Amino acid sequence: MIPTAQDATRPAEPIQWPAGKRAAAVLGFDMDAESVVLAINPEHRRRLSVMSHQAYGPVTGMPRILAMLRRHELRATFFCPGYTAERYPDLVRRVLDDGHEVAHHGYLHEAIQGMSVQQEADVLDRGLDALQRITGQRPVGYRAPMWETTYATAQLLLDRGFLYDSSLMDCDVPYELAERPGDGARSIVEIPVSWSLDDWEQYGYLPDVFGSGLIEDPAKSLSMWRGELVEAHAEGTCFTLTAHPFLTGRLGRLRALEDLVTTMTGWADLWVTTAAEVATHTRSLGLIPRAFPQPEI
Amino acid sequence: MIPTAQDATRPAEPIQWPAGKRAAAVLGFDMDAESVVLAINPEHRRRLSVMSHQAYGPVTGMPRILAMLRRHELRATFFCPGYTAERYPDLVRRVLDDGHEVAHHGYLHEAIQGMSVQQEADVLDRGLDALQRITGQRPVGYRAPMWETTYATAQLLLDRGFLYDSSLMDCDVPYELAERPGDGARSIVEIPVSWSLDDWEQYGYLPDVFGSGLIEDPAKSLSMWRGELVEAHAEGTCFTLTAHPFLTGRLGRLRALEDLVTTMTGWADLWVTTAAEVATHTRSLGLIPRAFPQPEI
Amino acid sequence: MIPTAQDATRPAEPIQWPAGKRAAAVLGFDMDAESVVLAINPEHRRRLSVMSHQAYGPVTGMPRILAMLRRHELRATFFCPGYTAERYPDLVRRVLDDGHEVAHHGYLHEAIQGMSVQQEADVLDRGLDALQRITGQRPVGYRAPMWETTYATAQLLLDRGFLYDSSLMDCDVPYELAERPGDGARSIVEIPVSWSLDDWEQYGYLPDVFGSGLIEDPAKSLSMWRGELVEAHAEGTCFTLTAHPFLTGRLGRLRALEDLVTTMTGWADLWVTTAAEVATHTRSLGLIPRAFPQPEI
Amino acid sequence: MIPTAQDATRPAEPIQWPAGKRAAAVLGFDMDAESVVLAINPEHRRRLSVMSHQAYGPVTGMPRILAMLRRHELRATFFCPGYTAERYPDLVRRVLDDGHEVAHHGYLHEAIQGMSVQQEADVLDRGLDALQRITGQRPVGYRAPMWETTYATAQLLLDRGFLYDSSLMDCDVPYELAERPGDGARSIVEIPVSWSLDDWEQYGYLPDVFGSGLIEDPAKSLSMWRGELVEAHAEGTCFTLTAHPFLTGRLGRLRALEDLVTTMTGWADLWVTTAAEVATHTRSLGLIPRAFPQPEI
Repeated sequence: MIPTAQDATRPAEPIQWPAGKRAAAVLGFDMDAESVVLAINPEHRRRLSVMSHQAYGPVTGMPRILAMLRRHELRATFFCPGYTAERYPDLVRRVLDDGHEVAHHGYLHEAIQGMSVQQEADVLDRGLDALQRITGQRPVGYRAPMWETTYATAQLLLDRGFLYDSSLMDCDVPYELAERPGDGARSIVEIPVSWSLDDWEQYGYLPDVFGSGLIEDPAKSLSMWRGELVEAHAEGTCFTLTAHPFLTGRLGRLRALEDLVTTMTGWADLWVTTAAEVATHTRSLGLIPRAFPQPEI
Repeated sequence: MIPTAQDATRPAEPIQWPAGKRAAAVLGFDMDAESVVLAINPEHRRRLSVMSHQAYGPVTGMPRILAMLRRHELRATFFCPGYTAERYPDLVRRVLDDGHEVAHHGYLHEAIQGMSVQQEADVLDRGLDALQRITGQRPVGYRAPMWETTYATAQLLLDRGFLYDSSLMDCDVPYELAERPGDGARSIVEIPVSWSLDDWEQYGYLPDVFGSGLIEDPAKSLSMWRGELVEAHAEGTCFTLTAHPFLTGRLGRLRALEDLVTTMTGWADLWVTTAAEVATHTRSLGLIPRAFPQPEI
Repeated sequence: MIPTAQDATRPAEPIQWPAGKRAAAVLGFDMDAESVVLAINPEHRRRLSVMSHQAYGPVTGMPRILAMLRRHELRATFFCPGYTAERYPDLVRRVLDDGHEVAHHGYLHEAIQGMSVQQEADVLDRGLDALQRITGQRPVGYRAPMWETTYATAQLLLDRGFLYDSSLMDCDVPYELAERPGDGARSIVEIPVSWSLDDWEQYGYLPDVFGSGLIEDPAKSLSMWRGELVEAHAEGTCFTLTAHPFLTGRLGRLRALEDLVTTMTGWADLWVTTAAEVATHTRSLGLIPRAFPQPEI
Repeated sequence: MIPTAQDATRPAEPIQWPAGKRAAAVLGFDMDAESVVLAINPEHRRRLSVMSHQAYGPVTGMPRILAMLRRHELRATFFCPGYTAERYPDLVRRVLDDGHEVAHHGYLHEAIQGMSVQQEADVLDRGLDALQRITGQRPVGYRAPMWETTYATAQLLLDRGFLYDSSLMDCDVPYELAERPGDGARSIVEIPVSWSLDDWEQYGYLPDVFGSGLIEDPAKSLSMWRGELVEAHAEGTCFTLTAHPFLTGRLGRLRALEDLVTTMTGWADLWVTTAAEVATHTRSLGLIPRAFPQPEI
């Protein structure tokens, strides 16, 4: 007999957004740069073109993205691996100076699949240390590299004082995630993501490293993302888009993203803000935490 | 000399639909949830984000799909693995309470490729037992996980009293499928499916688990499915769509499905109903069974 | 020093089409049915759904395709593996009765990559024997399964009296292909093909057998093929489309193909005919044969 | 502590284009022909259809591309492997006679990943020797096959007198690339490329050799490339498109490219020229070289 899930199998509660707002949108940028490629295989560091492909993010994409956000007077969340912060410290500080949020995104963008809890904790600490050392601030949010988490992740984040995680995919609204089923469990705010609201599947291609081999037209991504945004706005959910500066920083793609942003800002009742703001608001609602019982077979 | 096929190499007979109807459409939802991922590799149970991706189906997608069907006063067929029924018993009962059909979809969404007949039978019984125990009803229909069947499947289903199967792909109308070539064979109603009328190829992506790596725009799926629907309506076939709540339950995709449903319900002469109703009607027609002789080389 | 190619490195000569015609179009249907799957792995014969997926071609797709061609009073070429002819003899005879051409397409749709010349010859003879035995006619044309040929293929075909091959991809017009470089070589007519004018890449998906995992909208294929057709018409080349009844026989896809056919038949100066007719015409032109020197490294 | 990059982590400087020009565009054609396939596996030389697929480039695509460029009075850059020059010497000389640039693209289109510096140097010399012997000219530009470079590539190119490389991807404008960080380093002009401005991902498919399995509609590529071009024009960057004659030489694809070219030539302030011209202009600007410090972990 497998156990019946008690909590997270129930739908998450609808969110009451701040006064005048019927839905929320978070623009998240994962500042992977070289880290994600080096994590796949450290030998890729010998491949100059591959490294330069990743460097496009901090070198060319980021200044454009920051300028675009300024044009629209928007604040966004930048999920930054510790390694990126160490390699591009001025850039990370500039992100903060522009009023954006910097959140934790691993140290070397490690996929933690198969790691022990101790290994997961070590990576978390290493990334935290780098971000704190370079920015002088302790991030309140975490997004797992490759959105890969374990049943220990929430507890590890709570032990380190994090307010929110943004790596799960079971719904479209933020909620309180219990660190475990049962009484006495602490909870962390979860801001869910989706593979369909990510630019990686649309644009990511690097031979012998990652990608399906196809590269999509930004017009297609825009159609798909706008379709989802229209419904999120109508339904009152939290539209959480994930973009990578080394991909979406390219001119035609950034134009598509800016077109999407223009749709967003045209709606006075859409709250376009950082993940931290959404998490703080969610925390204020006193929601009943949801727990994920680990499946047994 | 290889044997010349006697029956199934002949086209299936056209179907005379109920009075006033020129074609049929079946909306099928495969409630895979966590099962399909756990069947691929039980170790995926340690990956919280992966589990949450699958939980999107029962937690978020299903309530939306049920509400959409209520809005259009439609009944659909939900193909449910036994494991999903055990993990989400209230949800499965709610599907029945809403007037829909619940059919068999394996126990843990096992791909039976390479299994012995006894193993295939055991999986069938385990799924049947779970559905009966939880719903109090015996399903009349079966859809093989991954649409993977053997030349023993029809016989195993008939031995267990099933009325229909929905896993083959040789035509676009239901027919009587003989359990074997030759005299004295029993037959089961077959409601054929198609990989092109499935949301998996359009939207399914979970790194290290499944997917081509690309994720399609619902506008593309809608264009493709509507194109097929228009022809099915004109030709008098049975349009059988397969959707997964963990995929199509997402907002923009459900909007595309609802647009398709609106096209369907706009035609008074299209019979939109459950697979069981189509099977019962097909059985009433007294069709000559078709047999598939197994190819030899 | 690698040898400089003498002949085939020169562009093929433009074709003077019959009076009143400025370009040609050949509709080719590859009747693979079960063969292509069994050639990949004979064990697939135990997978009923997989076999039924392939049976869609002869059972459902072919009657529709033949009816469509009758509606437009067009003749097409059907490339038929010997195994398909043995399994569906009535169908193959009906293709001939409708005035179409039946050509050679291997015995079990064998990919000859890695075969010896003798093995290639044996497969050729086995397919030839099956087609002759069942249709009473000797085919004049050959299309290699998977368009996989060797530097011995032309000679093997000439030894068996074939008029043309349709498997190479170096240009868009038919030409005389020399069996080898140098004096005294015989030649066979070549009617080139293209991966971009094939429905396999657009629609072909069968898990654990073949396909990229994605399935395209017929509207996209139609746009791509019509774009090529418009240019072929303008340039005076031979538009050679390859479709598979188990793929393009589906309703929405056949609609797209029929739309393309309607474009074709709307141009009085486009010669829509069989590959054999194109080959016979090409042979009458007395073209200088082109030879492919095998690359050395 | 990993070293903080000193130079290349800063954005490249904007380019002051020649009088009257606000942006630049380079049409680059990679004349891979058979070489790229033979480099993957020399045994592919036994596959006649595969060889003919690659021969489409020099045999059919190149004459069309040269004619199209003449129609628009444009000069382009042809990146040519030494092997292609040896196999098609007349074609390479004709490219030069038409006023275009011929640049270095390896000998057999070798992917240098995993090679030693000496091996990389040997391949470079072998390609250089072939081009010089056949054209009587020494190329000033280099594009690495598969855009695969090492941290030694710039030095090797400078030792051989090259003016520019076109293989990196960190920005959208040309710049001076230092052969190494630190004082006294020489520099080479870099004209960056992008996987998204390449026809390979859109059209490249050759079973058992390369490709995702899908083939895209030229209408999609045109939409994507034109979208990027419009932005490049507005931003003053260098739009660098890479096309392969064996892919883009096909009629419908060349029509799409010509439509893009028509957009280009409609703007009087877009400088459409060769990579060598862009490199010479860039060199004249006296830019501060940028260095890529190799990542450490």
